[in-house]
Amino acid sequence: MNPSQLVKDLGEHGLLAKLQRFCPQDVVGDDGAVLATAPGQSLVVTTDVLVDHVHFSDRTTTAFDVGWRAAAANLSDLAAMGAMPLGITVGLSLPGEVAVSWVEDLYRGMDACLSLYQTPIVGGDLCRSQVVSIAITAFGQVVPGRVIRRSNAQPGDAIVITGLHGLSRGGLELLLKPDLGSCLNSQERERLIEAHQRPKPRLDVLQWLEQIPSDIAIAGMDSSDGLADAIAQICHCSGVGAQIERDYLKIFPALNKLVETETAFNWLLYGGEDFELVLCLPLNIASALVQDWGRDTAIIGTVTSNSKITITGSRDSTTLQSLNIAKGFQHF
Amino acid sequence: MNPSQLVKDLGEHGLLAKLQRFCPQDVVGDDGAVLATAPGQSLVVTTDVLVDHVHFSDRTTTAFDVGWRAAAANLSDLAAMGAMPLGITVGLSLPGEVAVSWVEDLYRGMDACLSLYQTPIVGGDLCRSQVVSIAITAFGQVVPGRVIRRSNAQPGDAIVITGLHGLSRGGLELLLKPDLGSCLNSQERERLIEAHQRPKPRLDVLQWLEQIPSDIAIAGMDSSDGLADAIAQICHCSGVGAQIERDYLKIFPALNKLVETETAFNWLLYGGEDFELVLCLPLNIASALVQDWGRDTAIIGTVTSNSKITITGSRDSTTLQSLNIAKGFQHF
Repeated sequence: MNPSQLVKDLGEHGLLAKLQRFCPQDVVGDDGAVLATAPGQSLVVTTDVLVDHVHFSDRTTTAFDVGWRAAAANLSDLAAMGAMPLGITVGLSLPGEVAVSWVEDLYRGMDACLSLYQTPIVGGDLCRSQVVSIAITAFGQVVPGRVIRRSNAQPGDAIVITGLHGLSRGGLELLLKPDLGSCLNSQERERLIEAHQRPKPRLDVLQWLEQIPSDIAIAGMDSSDGLADAIAQICHCSGVGAQIERDYLKIFPALNKLVETETAFNWLLYGGEDFELVLCLPLNIASALVQDWGRDTAIIGTVTSNSKITITGSRDSTTLQSLNIAKGFQHF
Repeated sequence: MNPSQLVKDLGEHGLLAKLQRFCPQDVVGDDGAVLATAPGQSLVVTTDVLVDHVHFSDRTTTAFDVGWRAAAANLSDLAAMGAMPLGITVGLSLPGEVAVSWVEDLYRGMDACLSLYQTPIVGGDLCRSQVVSIAITAFGQVVPGRVIRRSNAQPGDAIVITGLHGLSRGGLELLLKPDLGSCLNSQERERLIEAHQRPKPRLDVLQWLEQIPSDIAIAGMDSSDGLADAIAQICHCSGVGAQIERDYLKIFPALNKLVETETAFNWLLYGGEDFELVLCLPLNIASALVQDWGRDTAIIGTVTSNSKITITGSRDSTTLQSLNIAKGFQHF
């Protein structure tokens, strides 16, 4: 151990790797930890820290929206594990100079999102600090055999997404450059901005997944860090590859009005914060999901037995994993 | 709502009162929240935020000790609810300039304390911030009828403490003024400093409490904010009073060598961070606990039907609740 090494020298991933040695190996690696509690029930726990000027800023985000998105991100981590939420706790550090109305709006935003899923705020802590920091822990329940894991993907599985990607990134662009929106109609503008400000975790899809026979392990995670990241993480954890069909990756039409196709496609793959589920399922089950659930649910490719991730399009074939790593985000 | 009101104008308790309106009324008010999960099992969740320069400082606390105490405080909140721990999550915000060795020592300290209770760190989040902030959420399990609540105290109950108080405050004094320790032998010094740096949550007592007939509701909480605070909180939540016998409040002898009796007695009542349990139980059960468990377990008084909290001593009678409120601590 080098005593003078700083966190910024090591980077986030390096530090995480060191700290994960303090965690049981069987509980880390997914969006949440799974703990056996009563027979037939597992507890899923996930935690997130949001810091002012890192994760949010008054320029693009109201306190209400910060609260909504913080709640949504945590519920999405539960959805990513197949768990229905029981509640969240909120640990809030803030300077005394923050307006009380800001804090109340933050809670109103969390509450508005949580109410859609009948999820209570069950506890919290409040503390003085120089910087606003919001630590949320969400916990939920799942039948042990129904846990969705990144490591469950099998060669031959179809890769399904529960909705369109890139909209949240498009909404952010509109907020940063409102003039851009003049080429869109009001419905399109609202859809993009809502995708960014009021994302909805896909807990609704879990009810459909319940009917899958229990001997079939469901693989997947959410796309909060981007669709490309989700595919790469699943492949990495399952020791498989993926072949994605570019033609199946539908770009939301308003994005094509806003920017060039290549940019829109980049947002779709790397924009992040769409909070959809990316699932790997046997083809017949994936097809049934797309047929029953409809809307923008889509099969976008296939899990392969080699470790490559390729996008096969009408024009070219790209390796996704190398792109993803190059665009990865580190906090330090 | 006054839009210009700041958090520091309202104070911690005022803000908490506003934010508790967002929580279900039946889950707030104890050290942790209790949620029904499977039949015969309840989940208890508790959360704490520690901020550099507010809760700890490099002057008196190593990273290892910060970690130990953070873990101990959260496990003590579970013990205060009667729950055995399942795991904790850690949300860590920190500047890139922090030494990696500091972070590793923090985790070593948490792990050392948690290992005593076979409790894993099951998840976390890592984020850049200007200030070190550690948000811990602990969760545990309890049989619904065995939940310890502040609101369960009945007039006539005996008030029991599971150990001596004031030692942690004495240990802090020794760390701040090492010269003071010259009047103590090394065993006394170590005992005080260990009480401050390595407190042990009283999860061990829960196994004794299991045998109490299930129709008897157990009242209590931990004494992390001081013995006086615990008594006042229990009385407030149960709508009762308490008569404490000063002669039953044993001052650890080394404290009497260190400072005058009145100061030692103040530490005992208000020092805080002793992490013992303060329980209200029918007299026969309280007596059995003291007899079986021994060591420094003691009955210190009786729950009364009026709302006064008095300390009756050989010399005088003091009203504890007013003292406590005057010495209450607010973060803002």
